[in-house]
Amino acid sequence: MDHVILSDWLAARLDRAAAEPVYRQVLELVQQAILTGQLLPGAKLPSSRVLASDLGIARNTVLHVYDQLTAEGYVISTTGSGTYVADTRPDTAAVNVRKGPPAANGSIGAVGMRASAGSAPSAAPAQSGLSTRGARLIRQAGVSAKQWGAFMPGVPDVAEFPARTWSRLQAKLWKEANPDLLTYAPGGGYRPLRRALSDYLRVARSVKCTPDQIIITTGIHQSIDLAVRLLTDVGDRAWVEEPCYWGARSVLQSSGLTLVPVPVDDEGLNPRESDLQSPPRIALVTPSHQYPLGMVMSLARRRTLLEYARQHGTWIIEDDYDSEFRYGSRPLASLQGLDDAGQVIYVGSLGKMLFPGLRIGYMIAPEHLVDTFRTGVAELYREGQLMQQAVLTEFIMDGYLTSHVRRMRALYGERRQILIDAITERFGDALPVMGDEAGLHLVLGLPDHADDREVTAASYDAGVIVRPLAAYYNSETPERRGLLLGYACVPNERIGPSFDTLARVIERTALKRAAVPTQAA
Amino acid sequence: MDHVILSDWLAARLDRAAAEPVYRQVLELVQQAILTGQLLPGAKLPSSRVLASDLGIARNTVLHVYDQLTAEGYVISTTGSGTYVADTRPDTAAVNVRKGPPAANGSIGAVGMRASAGSAPSAAPAQSGLSTRGARLIRQAGVSAKQWGAFMPGVPDVAEFPARTWSRLQAKLWKEANPDLLTYAPGGGYRPLRRALSDYLRVARSVKCTPDQIIITTGIHQSIDLAVRLLTDVGDRAWVEEPCYWGARSVLQSSGLTLVPVPVDDEGLNPRESDLQSPPRIALVTPSHQYPLGMVMSLARRRTLLEYARQHGTWIIEDDYDSEFRYGSRPLASLQGLDDAGQVIYVGSLGKMLFPGLRIGYMIAPEHLVDTFRTGVAELYREGQLMQQAVLTEFIMDGYLTSHVRRMRALYGERRQILIDAITERFGDALPVMGDEAGLHLVLGLPDHADDREVTAASYDAGVIVRPLAAYYNSETPERRGLLLGYACVPNERIGPSFDTLARVIERTALKRAAVPTQAA
Repeated sequence: MDHVILSDWLAARLDRAAAEPVYRQVLELVQQAILTGQLLPGAKLPSSRVLASDLGIARNTVLHVYDQLTAEGYVISTTGSGTYVADTRPDTAAVNVRKGPPAANGSIGAVGMRASAGSAPSAAPAQSGLSTRGARLIRQAGVSAKQWGAFMPGVPDVAEFPARTWSRLQAKLWKEANPDLLTYAPGGGYRPLRRALSDYLRVARSVKCTPDQIIITTGIHQSIDLAVRLLTDVGDRAWVEEPCYWGARSVLQSSGLTLVPVPVDDEGLNPRESDLQSPPRIALVTPSHQYPLGMVMSLARRRTLLEYARQHGTWIIEDDYDSEFRYGSRPLASLQGLDDAGQVIYVGSLGKMLFPGLRIGYMIAPEHLVDTFRTGVAELYREGQLMQQAVLTEFIMDGYLTSHVRRMRALYGERRQILIDAITERFGDALPVMGDEAGLHLVLGLPDHADDREVTAASYDAGVIVRPLAAYYNSETPERRGLLLGYACVPNERIGPSFDTLARVIERTALKRAAVPTQAA
Repeated sequence: MDHVILSDWLAARLDRAAAEPVYRQVLELVQQAILTGQLLPGAKLPSSRVLASDLGIARNTVLHVYDQLTAEGYVISTTGSGTYVADTRPDTAAVNVRKGPPAANGSIGAVGMRASAGSAPSAAPAQSGLSTRGARLIRQAGVSAKQWGAFMPGVPDVAEFPARTWSRLQAKLWKEANPDLLTYAPGGGYRPLRRALSDYLRVARSVKCTPDQIIITTGIHQSIDLAVRLLTDVGDRAWVEEPCYWGARSVLQSSGLTLVPVPVDDEGLNPRESDLQSPPRIALVTPSHQYPLGMVMSLARRRTLLEYARQHGTWIIEDDYDSEFRYGSRPLASLQGLDDAGQVIYVGSLGKMLFPGLRIGYMIAPEHLVDTFRTGVAELYREGQLMQQAVLTEFIMDGYLTSHVRRMRALYGERRQILIDAITERFGDALPVMGDEAGLHLVLGLPDHADDREVTAASYDAGVIVRPLAAYYNSETPERRGLLLGYACVPNERIGPSFDTLARVIERTALKRAAVPTQAA
């Protein structure tokens, strides 16, 4: 294109009625002409006066466009001599370095080459894109697009959260707006919060820790991720319970660990001889309330696990989720409290107690690793949110955490009972209920031949969310069939009707086929 | 111990004056006696009546203790027969599985074994603890315990943040307290924020994207981490600029990538023949403003990189940090805007524009990977903070972001000038200044023989924080010596005095030794 053609080409494409300013339109059109090779390196642009006149726009607009083109390297302006298209074509020698012998001198811009980003003959299939671990992560993803409603497991009733109190404390702290609370949080979190949490956990969970040992994170996921990156190497074995929480599995796997699913029975984790023969670098357990089945790890198993870990150099991550919500019986002590060897990393979160969007969790690091963990959390995640941590501290110190948890325990206990009554009324003893002593969900067992994923899909279509137990197993052939039903976020009066809907789906899918052989008996 | 001895043993240890309730003291003492083997399995505990009388405490207290001991599995209560210590000793066969032939029947609790968690002969050295990658992470950690003061790089002036406005918007949203904003954020973030950011970035940064392509994260670290876990496998090569940001390096390395430091020159990334021969899976670049040196990647290099990436299936992560703070010249367009092949993942953050503790960043995913990235972010990090995202949305929509950035650009521009004037006045042209056209810091070059780490340490002792350029190099023998000086968070009147202090340190350490050979000339 010469001067005249460029003017015509631009004039044909300018849209004076468009919302986009003329300046930007001209700029992008010229850029496009250069990038597609329609304007070749060395071509001279019309003077700003000429182009402005050709297009009927202000000369100042053209000057601005030329300035920006110069700044971004599209053109070179020489005082007195004019404005020329710069040679910005890709360095073919560099690009094709593996495809054959390098070009004679490796210089940029062989004459006549027309770079056109969209039309090269043999583009590598980069678009397919995901790596092996990425593809597995997505394939096995357990996360759900819905986060609310009957019977979504693991979600507390956020509508009951004392938002007004929280907002009042928040307003107070923002009024002061201490700049120190607006920067990064390099020290493992807000010190007063760490003190408040260590006081709380010592009493409520029988952990042994100082405020220093508490590291504030954004939740269980980050706590596990940090421990994994500090304490394990790629290829190391990690014991997980079978079944277990999908999120933990994803975090461990995408950090390069080899998962060893270890069976659980009524006493919790129950390693096989073959598991024991190859000690893992790390073991992730839920002793207070196995996730998702709900059994408590027995004291003998706890002591065996601790002793095994001590002798074989295994780190134990204790995920003490939901331990505040225990119905009927008193909360049981943590595994961490039994650990004399500094091998247990205790992780927990406030999301289920308050609201999940809060994203505040904590971990208790072994004493000799406190500095390491504090450095690690800052280096890997660049934590902040000190203002929110300060609000939470006031919330705890003023007693709101305890009273809210107490109120929610009563409320969730009620909902649990309504659900269990509905189950019993409908199915009697035909379908067992597991894991109902604590937490925000229970497991409704299904017959061995039932396909719990199919029941879940049919239930979803009927408007009720459940989760198939199969989704928590690593194995393709889960030992148990069942559904996770979360009751915490379901208003009392919705439990019965929603369960009726679910029950009809269960009868239609999981029980119908069972009836066939039974009929013959 | 029999009944009498237990009573005596407890009586000798009970501290009635202690803050800890008697209930908890008795509980923990009995647990300790069982765990250390002083009370052996099968031993019968005194009746609650007897023990209460022996200790002179309420019988109800003892009943509570026995209940809890039963619940936690320390003892077994048989109605009518009494309370016995349970056998909870570690399963020696399981623990020692690799140390010799398994015990005859693998049963728990071989007679006579006394488990004592603290005294086994050959404890594995688990306490040493860190893995290879963990140890490297900590050894190379770049994070600093101080996050404020002259001349901390990368920290904006949070004292200037319009906290009152933010607080007002926040209070308004919390008054409504929409429960949907208190749960997890599975869809890649708050939809209106994604729309606002895509509008902003299209104009300000010339990116090409729809609101769908925006994924909200907690910042650059998480954005890079997500891309790495989805798009790379352990052992893959990653190009990083030499020098580069320490945080990105740590994130990439701890995910198992092999770093290939690629030199930069005045035109930005400048791969060697050997780099080009082995295409990386991913390349992390800062085209607008190389971090930390500040050069802009030329258009020819941009086009070459894009074409190379397209042909070799390389993903490019464009870290567009600090691009809002450009002094004198207009902001340059993003690399992402030139990408027709969907291979650039654009990452940015709002921390430097507003306040670092905010922890809101964003990434632009290639269109065909949007669903994948949304699933990935929810699966790996369980994001939330929708309330805060809603506050930010209002802040942007009401024009506060733009006006705050404009005000800060003027303020930081002033501070930059004050610092440059101070440098020039003191050192003339002797020490070069680099990377001062944009961002929140500049680089003060030092003579080749100077040890910038030593200058940093001496400066720290004198009360001034700087960062050595050496800390940003992967190589042990950095090509350039220098200091990063952040001026954004330093009040105007503190810049001169702080620089005086630093200058004296520089003269004493970095320039003094240079004077020796010069004297001879």
